[in-house]
Amino acid sequence: DDEVITHAHGAGGGQMTELVDAVAVSQFADAAADVGLAALDDGSVQPIDDDHSVVVTTDSHVVTPLFFRGGDIGRLAVSGTVNDLAMMGATEPLALTSSLIIEAGTPQTTVERVTESMREACEEAGATVTTGDTKVMGSGEMDTLAINTTGVAVVPKGGHVPDAGLSVGDRLIVSGTVGDHGISLLSEREGFDFGGDLESDVQPVNDLVRAAMDAGEVTAMKDPTRGGLATVLNEMASKADVGIDVEERSVPVSGPVSSAGEVLGIEPFDVACEGVVVMGVASEDAADVLDALRDNPKGEDAAIVGEVVDDHTGQVVLDTGFGRRYLSPPEGEQLPRIC
Amino acid sequence: DDEVITHAHGAGGGQMTELVDAVAVSQFADAAADVGLAALDDGSVQPIDDDHSVVVTTDSHVVTPLFFRGGDIGRLAVSGTVNDLAMMGATEPLALTSSLIIEAGTPQTTVERVTESMREACEEAGATVTTGDTKVMGSGEMDTLAINTTGVAVVPKGGHVPDAGLSVGDRLIVSGTVGDHGISLLSEREGFDFGGDLESDVQPVNDLVRAAMDAGEVTAMKDPTRGGLATVLNEMASKADVGIDVEERSVPVSGPVSSAGEVLGIEPFDVACEGVVVMGVASEDAADVLDALRDNPKGEDAAIVGEVVDDHTGQVVLDTGFGRRYLSPPEGEQLPRIC
Ligand SMILES: Nc1ncnc2c1ncn2[C@@H]1O[C@H](COP(=O)(O)OP(=O)(O)OP(=O)(O)O)[C@@H](O)[C@H]1O
Ligand SMILES: Nc1ncnc2c1ncn2[C@@H]1O[C@H](COP(=O)(O)OP(=O)(O)OP(=O)(O)O)[C@@H](O)[C@H]1O
Ligand SMILES: [Mg+2]
Ligand SMILES: [Mg+2]
Ligand SMILES: [Mg+2]
Ligand SMILES: [Mg+2]
Ligand SMILES: [Mg+2]
Ligand SMILES: [Mg+2]
Repeated sequence: DDEVITHAHGAGGGQMTELVDAVAVSQFADAAADVGLAALDDGSVQPIDDDHSVVVTTDSHVVTPLFFRGGDIGRLAVSGTVNDLAMMGATEPLALTSSLIIEAGTPQTTVERVTESMREACEEAGATVTTGDTKVMGSGEMDTLAINTTGVAVVPKGGHVPDAGLSVGDRLIVSGTVGDHGISLLSEREGFDFGGDLESDVQPVNDLVRAAMDAGEVTAMKDPTRGGLATVLNEMASKADVGIDVEERSVPVSGPVSSAGEVLGIEPFDVACEGVVVMGVASEDAADVLDALRDNPKGEDAAIVGEVVDDHTGQVVLDTGFGRRYLSPPEGEQLPRIC
Repeated sequence: DDEVITHAHGAGGGQMTELVDAVAVSQFADAAADVGLAALDDGSVQPIDDDHSVVVTTDSHVVTPLFFRGGDIGRLAVSGTVNDLAMMGATEPLALTSSLIIEAGTPQTTVERVTESMREACEEAGATVTTGDTKVMGSGEMDTLAINTTGVAVVPKGGHVPDAGLSVGDRLIVSGTVGDHGISLLSEREGFDFGGDLESDVQPVNDLVRAAMDAGEVTAMKDPTRGGLATVLNEMASKADVGIDVEERSVPVSGPVSSAGEVLGIEPFDVACEGVVVMGVASEDAADVLDALRDNPKGEDAAIVGEVVDDHTGQVVLDTGFGRRYLSPPEGEQLPRIC
């Protein structure tokens, strides 16, 4: 077998899933876990005594450029990890780690600006970095800077939220406009300005998630990062063995993102958001959860976008207003180094 | 300020400490912690209730070549993180994370071999990977493969061991021969064979540490990775505000490592070990702890190498057999990408 790694293996789609099966799921037998590796959720959950479990999540960040409209790699690293903890129901991070791989020749001020941004994002999230690592690679051996952040939190036993928890009848809520991070970053890379209205949505949303969980029964959550909304909805449907119906016009998309997406030939549903949550909510609680989300400026565009159905299992059907079609996850290379 | 990052910033010495002060210690105020970021220990320790604390540690691995005599980057990543947990007294890892950054064009079989090696090391250590991440960078943007592993464990409150815990009178024990990883890797890079007797010592030593802790009072621990034995002894002395006396001929160094070090012009005390522990032990327990270490094949070369003294505070004095001199930590670039 002489297959080589391509950008598709890092794009969040089917080829990444195959690679992760080969290099991880097949290697690591499931230890005693509430949510183990094989669940491929946003993080793992393991019991530590009768009353508590530990939630762990990790992401390496290789975004380019390092500083982009609306954020930078430091804000992205902290927000991404805080949000993956929150997606498991762990809205109070206990510890974050910060591991830097820096190319020799990088100005020290670049690293300092990035870590100041990490601190600011930590303050927003009520998180702190407790330990880290610093490695240097030679000039030309690494493009500038990569940051791994790992997050750890403790939740009451059974207090976690899996991404596989949807039941028929649940409503699907999206907490904000979709596609902002991916479309903004790509337009910046391509040198388009689009009137300066586009910027990444990168932000920690653990407070928003906490408000939602306090307002009603959240049955499943996922942050639509690589692969965007289309990918996570399909994952949530297939993991829970249910169908999902989505009404296209209910999904919040900003005007600039929509126009820029058309020019760039990119679907806002297919690209990364970095400050948005997709959640399943028990139907009787959907209105309360929506109100709770909208009470927070980060959730002012929140909307009920669809519901879970006992039909087309594992598939997402989009009502476009003109008809119904499957909403498939994007495949292939997509956008390298978006996060 | 237009300082740029150099290999010295990743070498484990004074310039790395300055960088870490600037980018981390100065940014992250100490959260409630038994061992916080500012302690610059092998990991952090934070209370989660009256009875338990969570230990977290992280390292990114960028070693080159990926496969070297005695191990590979996968074995190194798992061992390094298991060992940093063990250095905090946490000998039962609860969860490891595995985050891969892969250069496009890398054969998938390379990644598979590395992750098989991770699994083997996990089995040796009684550890398991519960979650991870996979990112792809473009060809030429990253040299082949970097792996971040983060480790999490729960210890009884107060059951952790800081690196700053030495007291006057404690004995210093080294659990095995020093310099093997660094000297072996460097000789391989330089194309020297030295009769094939050199290989990395990379291995998880949490079992060895557990045996030592069960046999007597271990007051401080550190694994002599970047910067080697000379660096960690100086750190332990200055953190505890004590002096350390070491007898050179008691420090275990293998014949091949000693000869190769001479040819290469490298001190075995100055380079990384990846399967060795340096520990302070209460004097009355030193013989028992030594016996316990030697009972395990990984500790068969263990030796008492010196003691903690109320003199030359923060300094390490080496008795060479011909006289006494300060043992200083190595400074400067040293060996890039050794771990
Ligand atoms: N190298 C790996 N080793 C172990 N598990 C992995 C690895 N790569 C990915 N995974 C697992 O696969 C699942 C999907 O990972 P993915 O990175 O897509 O999730 P995410 O972090 O929520 O998304 P993103 O990285 O886009 O923010 C997770 O459960 C993750 O733990
Ligand atoms: N970028 C960073 N952010 C936060 N803390 C850091 C960072 N880099 C290093 N540290 C902290 O500095 C201390 C020393 O780090 P170092 O990596 O030398 O320890 P180590 O992992 O035990 O050694 P090695 O990496 O050689 O195995 C640790 O407490 C670590 O948490
Ligand atoms: Mg996620
Ligand atoms: Mg993520
Ligand atoms: Mg380290
Ligand atoms: Mg260490
Ligand atoms: Mg280490
Ligand atoms: Mg990820």
